[in-house]
Amino acid sequence: MKIIATIALAAMLAIPALAQTGKVLDNLSVPSKVLKSDRKFAIYLPPDYASSERSYPVMYLLHGAGDDHTGWVQFGEVLHIADKAIAEGKATPMIIVMPDANTGRRGYFNDVKGDWNYEDFFFTELMPYVEKKFRIKTEKRFRAIAGLSMGGGGSFMYALHHPELFSSACPLSASTGPITLEDAKKGLIRNNPNIADSTVERYYNRHSALALIDKIPDDQKKAVRWYIDCGDDDFLYEGNSLVHIALRKKEVPHEFRVREGGHTWTYWRQSLPEVLAFVSQAFHQY
Amino acid sequence: MKIIATIALAAMLAIPALAQTGKVLDNLSVPSKVLKSDRKFAIYLPPDYASSERSYPVMYLLHGAGDDHTGWVQFGEVLHIADKAIAEGKATPMIIVMPDANTGRRGYFNDVKGDWNYEDFFFTELMPYVEKKFRIKTEKRFRAIAGLSMGGGGSFMYALHHPELFSSACPLSASTGPITLEDAKKGLIRNNPNIADSTVERYYNRHSALALIDKIPDDQKKAVRWYIDCGDDDFLYEGNSLVHIALRKKEVPHEFRVREGGHTWTYWRQSLPEVLAFVSQAFHQY
Amino acid sequence: MKIIATIALAAMLAIPALAQTGKVLDNLSVPSKVLKSDRKFAIYLPPDYASSERSYPVMYLLHGAGDDHTGWVQFGEVLHIADKAIAEGKATPMIIVMPDANTGRRGYFNDVKGDWNYEDFFFTELMPYVEKKFRIKTEKRFRAIAGLSMGGGGSFMYALHHPELFSSACPLSASTGPITLEDAKKGLIRNNPNIADSTVERYYNRHSALALIDKIPDDQKKAVRWYIDCGDDDFLYEGNSLVHIALRKKEVPHEFRVREGGHTWTYWRQSLPEVLAFVSQAFHQY
Amino acid sequence: MKIIATIALAAMLAIPALAQTGKVLDNLSVPSKVLKSDRKFAIYLPPDYASSERSYPVMYLLHGAGDDHTGWVQFGEVLHIADKAIAEGKATPMIIVMPDANTGRRGYFNDVKGDWNYEDFFFTELMPYVEKKFRIKTEKRFRAIAGLSMGGGGSFMYALHHPELFSSACPLSASTGPITLEDAKKGLIRNNPNIADSTVERYYNRHSALALIDKIPDDQKKAVRWYIDCGDDDFLYEGNSLVHIALRKKEVPHEFRVREGGHTWTYWRQSLPEVLAFVSQAFHQY
Repeated sequence: MKIIATIALAAMLAIPALAQTGKVLDNLSVPSKVLKSDRKFAIYLPPDYASSERSYPVMYLLHGAGDDHTGWVQFGEVLHIADKAIAEGKATPMIIVMPDANTGRRGYFNDVKGDWNYEDFFFTELMPYVEKKFRIKTEKRFRAIAGLSMGGGGSFMYALHHPELFSSACPLSASTGPITLEDAKKGLIRNNPNIADSTVERYYNRHSALALIDKIPDDQKKAVRWYIDCGDDDFLYEGNSLVHIALRKKEVPHEFRVREGGHTWTYWRQSLPEVLAFVSQAFHQY
Repeated sequence: MKIIATIALAAMLAIPALAQTGKVLDNLSVPSKVLKSDRKFAIYLPPDYASSERSYPVMYLLHGAGDDHTGWVQFGEVLHIADKAIAEGKATPMIIVMPDANTGRRGYFNDVKGDWNYEDFFFTELMPYVEKKFRIKTEKRFRAIAGLSMGGGGSFMYALHHPELFSSACPLSASTGPITLEDAKKGLIRNNPNIADSTVERYYNRHSALALIDKIPDDQKKAVRWYIDCGDDDFLYEGNSLVHIALRKKEVPHEFRVREGGHTWTYWRQSLPEVLAFVSQAFHQY
Repeated sequence: MKIIATIALAAMLAIPALAQTGKVLDNLSVPSKVLKSDRKFAIYLPPDYASSERSYPVMYLLHGAGDDHTGWVQFGEVLHIADKAIAEGKATPMIIVMPDANTGRRGYFNDVKGDWNYEDFFFTELMPYVEKKFRIKTEKRFRAIAGLSMGGGGSFMYALHHPELFSSACPLSASTGPITLEDAKKGLIRNNPNIADSTVERYYNRHSALALIDKIPDDQKKAVRWYIDCGDDDFLYEGNSLVHIALRKKEVPHEFRVREGGHTWTYWRQSLPEVLAFVSQAFHQY
Repeated sequence: MKIIATIALAAMLAIPALAQTGKVLDNLSVPSKVLKSDRKFAIYLPPDYASSERSYPVMYLLHGAGDDHTGWVQFGEVLHIADKAIAEGKATPMIIVMPDANTGRRGYFNDVKGDWNYEDFFFTELMPYVEKKFRIKTEKRFRAIAGLSMGGGGSFMYALHHPELFSSACPLSASTGPITLEDAKKGLIRNNPNIADSTVERYYNRHSALALIDKIPDDQKKAVRWYIDCGDDDFLYEGNSLVHIALRKKEVPHEFRVREGGHTWTYWRQSLPEVLAFVSQAFHQY
């Protein structure tokens, strides 16, 4: 009798343990009026998602140029790395949402011409959609953003535009946007020789991390927790080093790391566990 | 009694680790018009296959003469070794397809007489079938081929015939095909004393690794990533050493290893983790 | 009793490991005509120094402002860390020389007034003295320099002034000297209100890492191997970040690291094993 | 009383343990009439050499072109690696003799002109000298030869010329000498446009590993134990691969390894423990 009871108990106990593997879906989509199409996204659900009925914090994890919503799944090993970080207690269980910013047009921002408004899509369609379809906590404290390269740029701008929405932002090997107004003009004029100076200025003020950092109000310096990371061999060294200097001079608290490496998935797979631990500090508090 | 119960419980609690185990099916089959029969194959599905809805890279893993599709399962310990490599983060989760090339006739090539076209079967029936039945990514980047002995020969020829289909090829202790045209003739004439010289030449040009390497066009030298391995006591030492020399002279990048050992499963079980790590470098990028 | 004796014996038997321990002398001195005094230095001798008759590579390891030649011994744990790195094969046995730059006057440079020429002392008296007194290899390949803070500044300037003498230089949390000529003037004018502009310029050109990097000739870009490290909370973040940018733009190969931490011995004790491994790469070649 | 005795015992027991570090002398020399100069050499004495009175097996360890007798000491980490192999029981205590073949002229062979006879020096002066000065066993069984690159060539030729003197030979990344007579002519004619064909032939027959292997008499095939190693990225891949093929065809037992790597000290530091273990198998027998 006792042995049978033990087996039954073990069988039950085995259930949560069976759930020690999280789950990745990489072929979901959200209908978008803003972008006039269905937009794909991948999602990571933590090991206990299926067995629990609780809601979870969320991290949006943005891919770089050249990848799509499956980049962090296939190249970034998000399942293996998140499962491991959670199993070891370094990260708290969370949902990770990975949207596609590579179809139709590439990029996370509203186009200067106003006919492709990905940033609007992100905040008015994607976020509400996943918050409704999955058990996601909706307070700022429980929302983070991270990404690599172009997606690092997205992480910078989204969190600088909307510090009221993200407790943590983790731009990795990020494109930090134009360093000067002059750089912004040089970049934009290539596609649009007749671009107005006012458009350039508006773009610069909205998509240069340095310009945005310069304008952070005093009472907002601690609004977002920052983890910024860029390999010493990465071609994006300058913008990220200058962001570090700018944040230090502005006295905006932030973590900055330069490890050995370039603009590679090997580097980002090493960054991801740090990011998961860092955003978890806000999710479960010190 | 209590102690026993506790031990039993602990034993049961160990089961959850099983939840991280991949799955091997070794009695599947694909209907083949080309070979006029149902052809068996075995498949390895990674630990997270059942719980996820994502798609996976694939490695085709070919057995040697004398084995069939169960060789890598039974003697090669593919489940244990792949699970371990994935758990340790040395390999990325992938699907491994192991077809039978031992029933009816033996071998991976189209017969010179044209009445048994296994290579056609592989590319036009097996590959499409498993890509449809399982969640397999279909881009070249996510497809690899490996195999031992006769299956190493298959790996060489398939990747040299179709560099547009495989990102990596790993011939282990491979039969590299005839070294010279003369060798080809000696081999074929045994079964067919009246074989035409043109048939011999066609066979040599298609099934000698050295002949095929010699003809790799300059812009195709990096089309396939190569990992070639042959024990110092293996009877196939000559062809593999000459392939290494030929690839070096042709400046085709490749990895070459000669470890202690002969033509044995002990050797191949040591090779398999290296192969899984090597093909993963293409699957999840550096 | 028996058990106690056994324990005592075991404890004693642990001593032999001590036989693999290097040796630190921290109260040596070298007579200096240049500085008109005896100058103290500490030295680390590797575990096999006493038993061998071979000669060794050397690393000069400079302390920061506020410490003296005992800083790396007492706070930096040089004995323990070097012994461990050597025992683990991460570093090659080397001699480490730690001179005092805190007595009389503080600093590693020649004074602008010309009456305290520490840099001259270092190259014309200290180096020849230790090379004579200890079995030190005297080729450039076998000589490295490293240091923290003010000693990081010394490492920068000595290697930039004498690239023919050092194979590796490792400035840690370094004072990089004035960023602009204007900064140089501001700094010097404090002690000397009537300082001539030409003196300021001479000082700037000699003691600003940025000015010196700007002037590295094309054929000298690989003359010295660089390992530069500065915590993200260190107050010296700006100069080091700008040095990283300047070296990248100039295409001077270098390693750059920003880890979590400030201007503390905790940080430098983590840096030291990396430094020992890095300089060893030149000492024992790839 | 008991405790005191224990301490005394421990003190005695500590003595051999203190000896766990071997000793390297890198500035010894042997007077040579053959080469009309004093020739330097370095020597490794095993940890128990000083405390014992026994005699030891010896391995001659030859440097490559560009190094001298200190190459294996400084770059090869011979002390650390030999101490470790002996401490772990993978190698038996032995003496390692590292002669200089870089001063005056470079190389291990007798010059074709007959005015620089390094090989004669090695056998008639160096070997007898060290066997007299150090406690070295003089039977063939207890003598091995190893070396890298040019020293790998030395290892090949010395053991092929004198199979009666060496139980093991370990050429690493070896220059194997000219592959064909034609190659030999091309090489020699550069320095000596009027060289006689008979001289070329004599050189080829004496300094081509392939020519010498071809002439090994049947009853000498097991005279020397061979361990041959060459990285897959080494530029000396062809000669070593052909030697492997030639030895296999000739049925001369040998170990052959191709690991990841090029013509670097990183590779040779990985080879050295294998070499020490391999030669020890003859020294202490299976």
